[in-house]
Amino acid sequence: MSYLDHIRNCNRYALKDFRPFYVEGVQVGHIKSAFAEKLRCWPAIFRVSPTAVHLVSNLQSFEERTQEVRVVLEALVEEGIIPRWHGEEYAVTASSRERALFVIDRGSAPYLGVRAFGQHLNGFVNQGGQLKMWIGRRSRDKWSAPGKLDNLVAGGVPHGVPLQENLAKECWEEAAIPVEMASQAVPVGYISYRFETQEGFKPDVMYCYDLELPPDFVPQCQDGEVEEFYLWPVEEVAALVQETDSFKRNCNLVIIDFLIRRGFITPEHPDYLEIVAGLRVPL
Amino acid sequence: MSYLDHIRNCNRYALKDFRPFYVEGVQVGHIKSAFAEKLRCWPAIFRVSPTAVHLVSNLQSFEERTQEVRVVLEALVEEGIIPRWHGEEYAVTASSRERALFVIDRGSAPYLGVRAFGQHLNGFVNQGGQLKMWIGRRSRDKWSAPGKLDNLVAGGVPHGVPLQENLAKECWEEAAIPVEMASQAVPVGYISYRFETQEGFKPDVMYCYDLELPPDFVPQCQDGEVEEFYLWPVEEVAALVQETDSFKRNCNLVIIDFLIRRGFITPEHPDYLEIVAGLRVPL
Repeated sequence: MSYLDHIRNCNRYALKDFRPFYVEGVQVGHIKSAFAEKLRCWPAIFRVSPTAVHLVSNLQSFEERTQEVRVVLEALVEEGIIPRWHGEEYAVTASSRERALFVIDRGSAPYLGVRAFGQHLNGFVNQGGQLKMWIGRRSRDKWSAPGKLDNLVAGGVPHGVPLQENLAKECWEEAAIPVEMASQAVPVGYISYRFETQEGFKPDVMYCYDLELPPDFVPQCQDGEVEEFYLWPVEEVAALVQETDSFKRNCNLVIIDFLIRRGFITPEHPDYLEIVAGLRVPL
Repeated sequence: MSYLDHIRNCNRYALKDFRPFYVEGVQVGHIKSAFAEKLRCWPAIFRVSPTAVHLVSNLQSFEERTQEVRVVLEALVEEGIIPRWHGEEYAVTASSRERALFVIDRGSAPYLGVRAFGQHLNGFVNQGGQLKMWIGRRSRDKWSAPGKLDNLVAGGVPHGVPLQENLAKECWEEAAIPVEMASQAVPVGYISYRFETQEGFKPDVMYCYDLELPPDFVPQCQDGEVEEFYLWPVEEVAALVQETDSFKRNCNLVIIDFLIRRGFITPEHPDYLEIVAGLRVPL
């Protein structure tokens, strides 16, 4: 294991069995060929060719697209082709969330291979110059990455919810960080990666935040998604990332970014150029 | 002017009149066609075709390549085609400085279009929670960007000089920052950009550092390259970058990176995704 291995693990994709997905002539996703073929059943909504999938051009408004595509995706959940309906709306966009062309349910996002947006927070304490990070262990019954280590707070951003508001909500649910304290979190950039999953494709934008917590603060999980919290010196966290697979895949990148920004990984590292570039791949 | 305009200003290139430059089958640079044609005079060293320039393959060692190419570049300086000899060795590499295939004089680097490596330091003071940045104004008689605003310390990294050592030297020469203080500088990543110049091409890696200075420290230029220093609130520096062309071109990017990492530019900025991606373009 190495820092670079974690970056490679998050950027595994071939896309040879995928077709680009276009809305209004702009590519917004990648669709697996097998799934694209299913969409042929709705020719009034999707125009499927052997090399691409287009949303039909007479769906011109945000609402119209949302409504028509929803009918298709609900049917596919019904048929069991998409395993579940999350009830959370995700933006479909070629750029930022604010420029969404329509919205789909979170569970369908990887099938259309559209951009995902998340927020990850590094919670740390400065004990007399020694930085320590709060790390969570994901509950054993989570559907993804059960039992893996995690950033103190992390979550997806549904469409239409302001980033600040969503972060405050996640801070409370995942770690009982009060709103006032959460508002001190400093946005420090984002990480991007492209990952091929069994369902499809996930080009992900993770907005990163640093939050220095008071020394006497102890996080508490409100929603049962975290089993336990640990407060570890940054150097120990760095070693865990560098040498093991203990963290949920994309959380490794959030910690590597923290280590880069705070000088724990220095330009003398032989992989420095590739690590830094690898945290921000073009989507 | 906008943050994004500064990023675009640093990434202006067409490369249509350029030919890729290869060493041992690996591309290490881009050479303007007119300059490539001059290299035809040395067929024992450069193999020039209409679509590419190759270093001849029988030059197999670092020393051999350095020595043979030096003869060519010296002759071109002699002829006035390359305007000056700097007397500073720069690495020719497809990756990091440590993996240099040979070295050339700094003045020749843009002609071969090879990677340049520099260091830029954000010097700041925390006055009761108000961050202020030390900004220099470049001397009016500097050969590049005279009279423009600059980061507190900035300089190119010659081959074979460790980054720490070079930074300490630049800190002393440009701002009279003592070695002990300079060693507190925190490496925080790098910025990359690709810029076409009149001479050729410059794919640049700027290693960035943050240094919190004592409130009573006042920088003093030792080498006459800075005319004056200012200590300005970060918000004023941000406004200068956003609204004007006062800074030397690439220094804008160093400040934008500082503003991103410290939350002065937030994810709510409409250009956030493009700004953050634009600071680290693939070289």
